[in-house]
Amino acid sequence: MKKHTVESCAKAKMAIRDTLDIVGGKWKLVLISVLRSGKKGFNELSREAGISPRILSKELQELEMNGLVSRTVCDTKPITVQYELTDYSQTLNEVLLAMEKWGYLHRKKIVQGIK
Amino acid sequence: MKKHTVESCAKAKMAIRDTLDIVGGKWKLVLISVLRSGKKGFNELSREAGISPRILSKELQELEMNGLVSRTVCDTKPITVQYELTDYSQTLNEVLLAMEKWGYLHRKKIVQGIK
Repeated sequence: MKKHTVESCAKAKMAIRDTLDIVGGKWKLVLISVLRSGKKGFNELSREAGISPRILSKELQELEMNGLVSRTVCDTKPITVQYELTDYSQTLNEVLLAMEKWGYLHRKKIVQGIK
Repeated sequence: MKKHTVESCAKAKMAIRDTLDIVGGKWKLVLISVLRSGKKGFNELSREAGISPRILSKELQELEMNGLVSRTVCDTKPITVQYELTDYSQTLNEVLLAMEKWGYLHRKKIVQGIK
């Protein structure tokens, strides 16, 4: 493996921490990946991602605050709210793809280990 | 943005969740990035990553269990323990690099927004 110096690691550590501050935790990247199939209402999102409404509400608020998700109130009866990914959220595509690929790889490793 | 179907999103969601199960949380990727500059002792790691010993111990145990970090007991007086990355941990390089790049990008965006 390529050796890293303490300095370059410190910079990398800070950047990784920054990323984790914004999209770390159990749900944010899952929510972003669920929203990739298109805009969704609150209940739909709660069901598809398997998140309780209380936590979902908090997570969406944080994603919105960081410019990753936008919230539109629709003039329906009753009023509905739709959530969708912003253009800026696309900058996370590489992170999501890398995590997706690693998830497949690791699952394969585990399954092969069990056989 | 490329549109994703509900099916491909469900698969991606599972894989991302798998990854988050193994290296999610506040510390694991930070620890891996710190260990990239070489093997370290417990106290050194605690200091460099800024993690309390109690949490560090738990995180290292989980990383070891998942084959990402190896633990060597050194026959010194007093006995010391060294932690280093395994070859398998290299499979996470793409995830780490993507998160590192996004961290830089997002910090730049925030700093520019403040100016």
